[in-house]
Amino acid sequence: MQTWIRFDAGDGRPRTGRLDGKRVFEHDGPGYAVPRPTGVSFPRSEVRLLAPCEPGKIVALWNNFHALARKLDKPAPAHPLFLLKPASSLAGPGDTIARPSGYTGKIVFEGELGIVIGRVCRDVPVDRASDYIFGYTAVNDVTAAELIAADPTFAQWCRAKGSDTFGCIGPAIVTGFNWRDATVVTRLDGAERQRYPLSDMIFGPEELVSRLSRDLTLMPGDVIACGTSLGVGSMKAGSVVEVCIDGIGSLVNAVGG
Amino acid sequence: MQTWIRFDAGDGRPRTGRLDGKRVFEHDGPGYAVPRPTGVSFPRSEVRLLAPCEPGKIVALWNNFHALARKLDKPAPAHPLFLLKPASSLAGPGDTIARPSGYTGKIVFEGELGIVIGRVCRDVPVDRASDYIFGYTAVNDVTAAELIAADPTFAQWCRAKGSDTFGCIGPAIVTGFNWRDATVVTRLDGAERQRYPLSDMIFGPEELVSRLSRDLTLMPGDVIACGTSLGVGSMKAGSVVEVCIDGIGSLVNAVGG
Repeated sequence: MQTWIRFDAGDGRPRTGRLDGKRVFEHDGPGYAVPRPTGVSFPRSEVRLLAPCEPGKIVALWNNFHALARKLDKPAPAHPLFLLKPASSLAGPGDTIARPSGYTGKIVFEGELGIVIGRVCRDVPVDRASDYIFGYTAVNDVTAAELIAADPTFAQWCRAKGSDTFGCIGPAIVTGFNWRDATVVTRLDGAERQRYPLSDMIFGPEELVSRLSRDLTLMPGDVIACGTSLGVGSMKAGSVVEVCIDGIGSLVNAVGG
Repeated sequence: MQTWIRFDAGDGRPRTGRLDGKRVFEHDGPGYAVPRPTGVSFPRSEVRLLAPCEPGKIVALWNNFHALARKLDKPAPAHPLFLLKPASSLAGPGDTIARPSGYTGKIVFEGELGIVIGRVCRDVPVDRASDYIFGYTAVNDVTAAELIAADPTFAQWCRAKGSDTFGCIGPAIVTGFNWRDATVVTRLDGAERQRYPLSDMIFGPEELVSRLSRDLTLMPGDVIACGTSLGVGSMKAGSVVEVCIDGIGSLVNAVGG
């Protein structure tokens, strides 16, 4: 297991590094690219975390947990159901979630596991899918909930979930992470709102990577947001949301005014 | 009016250039970046065209023409209805459209006007939107039509339209293009299948750029596919599709086996 981050050491220049205890060892490229150490290191406490990778796209799953499917009275899908969040929606740890211009409705949090792709991934069989997974991160799949069904003829998933800062990821990418025993916990202003086991996923990470790789090519740094389960809720201006996955860490974002 | 292309002069290296008559004048960056001429030029007949820009995302409109809305018996939407096609879906002039792995249903062509964004574009008022439009191109918004409604609970727009090679754009980007007087003509194996005036758009380019820029940030090189009108149809292996817009040119792609 390794922990990879992107960070700003104070000069405004994004850097990549491997976190080892309380020190960050800078590398000359992202972890999946087999980077070399630069020889420079920083105390963890003196750097500011950025989103841990730069996805070209975030593939966001809908209806991928049995418990939520039961609550919504939806059947388990036959194939992963997804929308795309663009690169422009990316936000990192500590970034403020911004209300889209002109939208006055509810903005909801959705705590999720994120899969970070490590290699160009096209038509990959499920038994080789793990070779294409670099690691795992936490995701807050922020959603302008009232936009989804605002038009009766067309579900606006990309609009509702694609705004700037609505793709929160971090705090780190952890390789070799055992998602099967892990739990996603989401806290809103310190109060627990979601707690669900990742073992309840309908399509697990290897199955997702394999099936999605038949629909489109996944690129290094792309993120698959595995979908959420029970307990999503709305956030107000000033709310602080924490998506916590033991072994990965806590992704904390506040909502702007 | 200027005509910008990307091309391969035979060495496999993508280059950008301005087309002037029968010669291509290479530049050191994309047209929207105010590039400098490198001093090198090539005969147009000796270069192979590539997709004329490298969009981070393609914002693809649904139900944006009055004639199609009437035929589908849908009201004109109150706000542009869109999905996202990823960068990985990009194809250029002459590229072969590939059937997604495991999909055996209909693949349809949709001839469209494409808007190419020239500047970072966020919360732009409609009366300034034209400053953010670099130029226009032609788009074939290829669609695995039977996937859209394959799941009764979730319309799979991104999956149906997001596969590799399903975002065909080109042959060139034309600046200062007068879309108001232009017509989109789509031919399948030489037979005309679409002919519709761009003046029938529900949301025109300036309105699209302004409204979409409130939903998400548009980046230089991003493409807005303005939606199609009457006459879309399916393509077979070996079919050749041409999307022709006078003043921009013909985007020609064949369908793979």
